[in-house]
Amino acid sequence: MGIRLAIIGATGAVGAAFLEVLEERTGRAGALEIDSLRLLASGRSAGKRLSFRGEKIAVEDLAKADLAGIDIALFSAGGAISRSWAPRFVAAGAVVVDNSSAFRMDPEVPLVVPEINAAAASDRPKGVIANPNCSTIILLVPLFPLHREARVLSARVATYQAVSGAGARALEELESQTRDLLEGRAVSPQILPHRIGFNLFSHNSAVGADGYNEEETKMRKESAKILSDESIRISATCVRVPVHRAHCEAISIETERALSPERAREILAAAPGVKVVDDPAKNHFPMPYEASGQDLVLVGRIRRDTAAAPGAHGLSLFVSGDQLRKGAATNAVQIAEFVARERRATTTAGAGAR
Amino acid sequence: MGIRLAIIGATGAVGAAFLEVLEERTGRAGALEIDSLRLLASGRSAGKRLSFRGEKIAVEDLAKADLAGIDIALFSAGGAISRSWAPRFVAAGAVVVDNSSAFRMDPEVPLVVPEINAAAASDRPKGVIANPNCSTIILLVPLFPLHREARVLSARVATYQAVSGAGARALEELESQTRDLLEGRAVSPQILPHRIGFNLFSHNSAVGADGYNEEETKMRKESAKILSDESIRISATCVRVPVHRAHCEAISIETERALSPERAREILAAAPGVKVVDDPAKNHFPMPYEASGQDLVLVGRIRRDTAAAPGAHGLSLFVSGDQLRKGAATNAVQIAEFVARERRATTTAGAGAR
Repeated sequence: MGIRLAIIGATGAVGAAFLEVLEERTGRAGALEIDSLRLLASGRSAGKRLSFRGEKIAVEDLAKADLAGIDIALFSAGGAISRSWAPRFVAAGAVVVDNSSAFRMDPEVPLVVPEINAAAASDRPKGVIANPNCSTIILLVPLFPLHREARVLSARVATYQAVSGAGARALEELESQTRDLLEGRAVSPQILPHRIGFNLFSHNSAVGADGYNEEETKMRKESAKILSDESIRISATCVRVPVHRAHCEAISIETERALSPERAREILAAAPGVKVVDDPAKNHFPMPYEASGQDLVLVGRIRRDTAAAPGAHGLSLFVSGDQLRKGAATNAVQIAEFVARERRATTTAGAGAR
Repeated sequence: MGIRLAIIGATGAVGAAFLEVLEERTGRAGALEIDSLRLLASGRSAGKRLSFRGEKIAVEDLAKADLAGIDIALFSAGGAISRSWAPRFVAAGAVVVDNSSAFRMDPEVPLVVPEINAAAASDRPKGVIANPNCSTIILLVPLFPLHREARVLSARVATYQAVSGAGARALEELESQTRDLLEGRAVSPQILPHRIGFNLFSHNSAVGADGYNEEETKMRKESAKILSDESIRISATCVRVPVHRAHCEAISIETERALSPERAREILAAAPGVKVVDDPAKNHFPMPYEASGQDLVLVGRIRRDTAAAPGAHGLSLFVSGDQLRKGAATNAVQIAEFVARERRATTTAGAGAR
């Protein structure tokens, strides 16, 4: 029994990543068996035709679409669309996997990174499963196996976030602005709030009373929810850098139990979703251009944190992951695969009981 | 009584910044009164003519230069040149202010950031005063006033370092590589070890047995020496980003005594060498393109560190400073100004005693 799948926000950057990831995974063990794929977007994009497995699929206008007959709906069209449309898809029978921030902190919505808490996806009173923020996923995929081994008490993170996280038009601005600067022409930001060509700036989400911007607050709150650990102390400084794709993070953790760099390397080498790239002799460590276009979070610079207090256990790392793939589309598709497996198991159990 | 000044490494990136800074400061209170300026460099550059205050000065071949009659020599031609030539300049009567790493950790050489420990420059048994590493200076100028107020126990730093720190040829590579990438051409790194166009990578200095690269180790050891505090715990992650000029640093500190963000902002607003750029409403914080071409270290994102342990006092900040100016040339010129003041004071005292 295959899945009738829908993608809402099919024409965006994450939408494109959804199609790429689904196509790549076709035929792999555990991959979705897709019986049908519908692509939905705003009226503006309706009628556009997108390629999937050699076929052209026409994009439907979300506002006019018949919502019946969809098993799983992958949403990535912004929080407002998710808030108003996810309940309607659920009412029509779909399970929604939502990539926006709309439902992430809702106690009735599980927030899932399959390598960490796949089982949480089963308990979804609203029919919605939330996909975490990209920077949170890229932080937690390598952090979790260390957390399980030695319990992470705190994590201080500084991010180096790619421009594609701010959308396709921001990416165009990076390119056109860079071109202008190389030609000595004056530039004035149109999409992003500050110059991005050969510059960087503090992540432009709104800053709260505590001085943290929304991106940083998401990393803190979502991490606690995913790890089911309200006591973990996270602080982040989120920065946009002139890179097309893949976020990097410099991370310093304190653990309850001792954890040597050697043991951490061993754990990370065996961890799902992680690739250790840590070659001091060649000065080869995680870089965004190598992390782009694939699903693993690259981890390196694994060393003792020289700022840890005497007696405390501190470790530092540097990671890079593709925020459109594992940070968004791949993670959501993995959640969908979990839901599909669960359906198969339920159906089989039901058939056996009959 | 003016100063007979020499610049060794006059044709490099810091050499250019020396000329720029000296020219700008002309006539300001406390500025060097320059009686004569000699420019020295390798034989390759000899004969080149550089502009200074409307005059053209011919660059001399260091190997053939007469070292007599120089009061202060500003060195920025790499560690090997400093090691072999600084003692000869001192023997010929000069005070050497050295921008290389050659003498920084020598116990007989003071390591000076004038806003912090100007007086240390007076005790120079070898006749040499060392200028700290650029990332160290940019870290300590804002850190020191907070340290004096609340005692900094630890600092965790992630850097975003501009390409001009790797020299003029690296800067050319950033531009040509970026151009190639924009045109869809394949690139292969020639000067820097990895692709820098729309990419970033861990600082390419050699990595030691403890997993830290030389840049990171410099930040840790130099900070302890400048602050005269061996107990301060520093850890750094140094990263090269595709920005022309000015380094940024995300900093999290723990202090012994309580220090609110409001009080920290007050202290920093009054601190020498610092400019507070911290406007959450406008999402305006330190950025490299605004820090470039001037001498102040911009400081913002001043907030409590949510990763600090219960009962501990944690603060986070984000800073940006021009590593060729305050991170190199300006700091060295300020040291030279201190030496000149000291000379004047000594001469006056001597005259009075006669």
